[in-house]
Amino acid sequence: MLGLMQHQPLLISAMIEHAARHHHDGEIVSRRVEGDIHRYTYTELAARSRQVANALDASSVAQGDRVASLAWNGYRHMELYFGVSGSGRVLHTINPRLHPEQVAWIINHAEDVIVCFDTTFTPIIQAVHSKCPGVKQWVALCDADKLPADTGIPQLLSYEAWIGGQATTYKWPDLDENTASSMCYTSGTTGNPKAALYSHRSTTLHAYGAALPDVMCLSATDAVLPVVPMFHVNAWGLPYAAAITGAKVVFPGPAMDGKSIYELVEAEGVTMAAGVPTIWQMLLGHILPNNLKFSTLNRTVIGGSACPPAMIKTFEDVLNVKVLHAWGMTEMSPLGTLGKLKNKQLQLSEAEQQKILEKQGRTVYGVDMKIVNENGEDQPWDGKTYGDLLVRGPWIISKYYKQEGNDPLVYDAQGRGWFPTGDVATIDADGFMQITDRSKDVIKSGGEWISSIDIENIAMAHPAVAMAASIGMPHPKWDERPIVVVSLKPGQQVTKEELLQFYDGKLAKWQIPDDVVFVEAIPLGATGKMLKTKVRESLQGYQLPTA
Amino acid sequence: MLGLMQHQPLLISAMIEHAARHHHDGEIVSRRVEGDIHRYTYTELAARSRQVANALDASSVAQGDRVASLAWNGYRHMELYFGVSGSGRVLHTINPRLHPEQVAWIINHAEDVIVCFDTTFTPIIQAVHSKCPGVKQWVALCDADKLPADTGIPQLLSYEAWIGGQATTYKWPDLDENTASSMCYTSGTTGNPKAALYSHRSTTLHAYGAALPDVMCLSATDAVLPVVPMFHVNAWGLPYAAAITGAKVVFPGPAMDGKSIYELVEAEGVTMAAGVPTIWQMLLGHILPNNLKFSTLNRTVIGGSACPPAMIKTFEDVLNVKVLHAWGMTEMSPLGTLGKLKNKQLQLSEAEQQKILEKQGRTVYGVDMKIVNENGEDQPWDGKTYGDLLVRGPWIISKYYKQEGNDPLVYDAQGRGWFPTGDVATIDADGFMQITDRSKDVIKSGGEWISSIDIENIAMAHPAVAMAASIGMPHPKWDERPIVVVSLKPGQQVTKEELLQFYDGKLAKWQIPDDVVFVEAIPLGATGKMLKTKVRESLQGYQLPTA
Ligand SMILES: Nc1ncnc2c1ncn2[C@@H]1O[C@H](COP(=O)(O)OP(=O)(O)OP(=O)(O)O)[C@@H](O)[C@H]1O
Ligand SMILES: Nc1ncnc2c1ncn2[C@@H]1O[C@H](COP(=O)(O)OP(=O)(O)OP(=O)(O)O)[C@@H](O)[C@H]1O
Ligand SMILES: [Mg+2]
Ligand SMILES: [Mg+2]
Repeated sequence: MLGLMQHQPLLISAMIEHAARHHHDGEIVSRRVEGDIHRYTYTELAARSRQVANALDASSVAQGDRVASLAWNGYRHMELYFGVSGSGRVLHTINPRLHPEQVAWIINHAEDVIVCFDTTFTPIIQAVHSKCPGVKQWVALCDADKLPADTGIPQLLSYEAWIGGQATTYKWPDLDENTASSMCYTSGTTGNPKAALYSHRSTTLHAYGAALPDVMCLSATDAVLPVVPMFHVNAWGLPYAAAITGAKVVFPGPAMDGKSIYELVEAEGVTMAAGVPTIWQMLLGHILPNNLKFSTLNRTVIGGSACPPAMIKTFEDVLNVKVLHAWGMTEMSPLGTLGKLKNKQLQLSEAEQQKILEKQGRTVYGVDMKIVNENGEDQPWDGKTYGDLLVRGPWIISKYYKQEGNDPLVYDAQGRGWFPTGDVATIDADGFMQITDRSKDVIKSGGEWISSIDIENIAMAHPAVAMAASIGMPHPKWDERPIVVVSLKPGQQVTKEELLQFYDGKLAKWQIPDDVVFVEAIPLGATGKMLKTKVRESLQGYQLPTA
Repeated sequence: MLGLMQHQPLLISAMIEHAARHHHDGEIVSRRVEGDIHRYTYTELAARSRQVANALDASSVAQGDRVASLAWNGYRHMELYFGVSGSGRVLHTINPRLHPEQVAWIINHAEDVIVCFDTTFTPIIQAVHSKCPGVKQWVALCDADKLPADTGIPQLLSYEAWIGGQATTYKWPDLDENTASSMCYTSGTTGNPKAALYSHRSTTLHAYGAALPDVMCLSATDAVLPVVPMFHVNAWGLPYAAAITGAKVVFPGPAMDGKSIYELVEAEGVTMAAGVPTIWQMLLGHILPNNLKFSTLNRTVIGGSACPPAMIKTFEDVLNVKVLHAWGMTEMSPLGTLGKLKNKQLQLSEAEQQKILEKQGRTVYGVDMKIVNENGEDQPWDGKTYGDLLVRGPWIISKYYKQEGNDPLVYDAQGRGWFPTGDVATIDADGFMQITDRSKDVIKSGGEWISSIDIENIAMAHPAVAMAASIGMPHPKWDERPIVVVSLKPGQQVTKEELLQFYDGKLAKWQIPDDVVFVEAIPLGATGKMLKTKVRESLQGYQLPTA
């Protein structure tokens, strides 16, 4: 027997119409490529999203066709989020930090028919357009009179010219909620990027989950600053979660330096910001030397790679800003877990609470997780036993785009499919998960595993260290031994011996790295993560002093 | 093109398994019929819910069959919530405050095959069992050795005997998420009760919505006290929302008096409580004379009927407890709107904020609403214009149970069905809705509408008044004129003239009632609402002094 409830598909168009109806004067503030601050409301955002939908109809873009963006966080990008997906097309967000060659490959692989780009990225488009014959229209996200001239890009159109003449009303289609809405390729940290294809349903459920009090806790009293890019996993779903909660949105545009971000937070009364650790390091690099404080920011979500405990402590102690440590993946829309205390933990000492909040946190309702050993057997939730982390849930992929024949899921005895994250983790009795490593980065020494993240976090707590990557090097007796590759903060000094001493008492003797290698900079990938593949390459010919 | 996300139906079984896995030691504390306090954890709740599922299998209860409960708020009732619905049966919660005749009618109308009841209600079951031939099993929610003797109820079984021998493991079925999960009849305030038939999907989406920061804001740091009964609209969905967030749950059982509730709140560290205004009036009647304060309670959700502004003010000013004024219906699972300020309103004066928070609030994401005139035309959101309130959303009914031929929805130009609430309301520019009346209770005087709720709220702000019902009486010239029927607080006195004077300056002259009628008590319905139908009956032969 079926229930007798209204059949309403969960659609992205419903989010923007909700925002326009119930939060009409909620603000969207954007720093633009031009450098100025642009502000308007959900009413205008919705109207212009409908114009985008009409422009796509006028351009005869079919349902399900991919429309790409190569853009900073800003209002026009947000219009594409709602206009493209809402009207039944698929928004393909491209990471502009990729090599032009990779961009071309991704455009062709996704079969994008329209590509919208910020003028910052004109050189990329100039480099790739001739290699992308499937693209019918290139659109520069700018005013008609700012269209870059003499680019050689065929039939280049300005966004404002493209949507300007269109009606601001639109009848959003009544889609099946499982219709594809957007797609994103993984960061390519461990190999070639693969694409996740999200649906209206997964995006809506993720937005509910992300807004929950024990997750990002989003409400109409918030002003949210997504520093995390809209070109990677939908800025962690913030544009959607903001629309359903009526939060004010503040977009940094291309100005990702510490000073610009700080000023925007202060000027716009930002209460919550979200970003990867490398971005916050830049922010702290501006704030701490200048003795600045935040007047409205009360929390920041940090994820994408492990947030060093030293950073959490600085935010808490110096800036009175709560860090919410989150873990997720492109394949998970991306939110999997986030660290918030439970009731019984409120009585613990600050140091004990801190230890809990350093972990990657508890699952968002909808996501389930487990850790397994090499035979696929469930491992205990004791906070100590490592295992391969598997996840399932309605906003987690079942397959990668265009790899239909290839089922990445692992099935349990009940026939339920679990997605293998490629991460190694512990889970404690309270359900707090801690990533110890990527499975590809695990260091195996004498039959035991050593967490590279532990080694890195300790190094990064040293005042002289800017960034640290720990790598397992082949060892004749122990199989592998860890070393730590380190870049220093400007003007800071530390010797190998001092740094190794710094590990004393913080790790078991056998877990302490055998060597320190100083480098100018640690190579970062397109989403700001350390590229250990590159670090390893740069160490070719390196000889362990202990081997 | 469909997305490539995991297909996972939104099921009630997933909620309880989530709670057991991720909040295993989260507490469920219940005051029992026996008077003692029972406490256990989500682990045991889940285990016993699985026993319920196994017991239903053993009793050969088919998928979709209705299993009824007639019970207070307590852990066994919560086990039925998950065990009955999770295993594919439909939990039919019956209001024990109904007349036995109505109970029998409802059991037969729903075609219940099993009825589980608290022993408080043994007399009701004794009165009805012979009239309910479809019921195969009567189950008393008690220990085996507490089974009431000599009741005449055939083959009466204790709940513990029924589930006790069953396994604590169970393979929950992979249901279609639109499968019926539970049902509830409306309060019967305005006519005969009709049943809503909820689904797993609607219940899950409602739980996400209810837990949002701008709604009930539920988290694993909360201890929630649902005073609102589990026998009516699933205690506003709190059992589900608690399971998905890991909140501690505190159940009052049959002890609904002010003293018991207050002591439970204090003993269990309750942070959030939910109930109808009449219940809170009893609570305040205990707290205020005794000068008590709350040490942990920080908010209370009040709804089901209009919460008098005087009550909101008392909670805020005297007890430092925020009142969240909510509006909903059985037909809406029940949450429609809830009053939380937006960012821009945080700057307003306390008095201005108070005015906003007296309204019934903004929609929960998922629900949309509009007001229309008698021709079905949209009315402006100006906070002044009255209209019939219509709603739509995935947790709102499309039809009533067993009225398949009868479509209650009203369709707009886009073909979308809206449910007519039977309430009359205003909506302001910020989306805050205010109920002015039931459409059946609207008072029409000289072509203008007068809000009976306004008249009642003012009377109830008078220190001598316990409860007030305003009714339109026929008038030869004005069509109708309002009077106010009033019951006084114990030991309090006020004259008709004094009370009418109390309206001076609070309403326009023509809106002030023509007369006051004092009564011992105002008749209440089964969910604690004033029964204006009964008030009107009791006024037969009454003559307006002004007519
Ligand atoms: N809070 C965190 N702590 C540690 N690692 C994290 C955290 N958040 C995310 N990660 C890492 O990021 C991964 C997900 O990143 P993303 O989907 O952007 O691409 P990627 O895994 O870096 O790239 P690729 O899959 O192409 O190699 C996770 O699997 C995990 O390894
Ligand atoms: N906060 C509130 N303020 C005013 N009225 C409210 C509020 N919350 C609920 N209501 C009233 O309660 C109604 C829903 O109640 P419920 O579904 O329990 O049954 P009922 O409408 O009282 O009974 P019936 O439909 O059988 O006559 C709403 O339509 C509205 O009239
Ligand atoms: Mg990856
Ligand atoms: Mg009703």
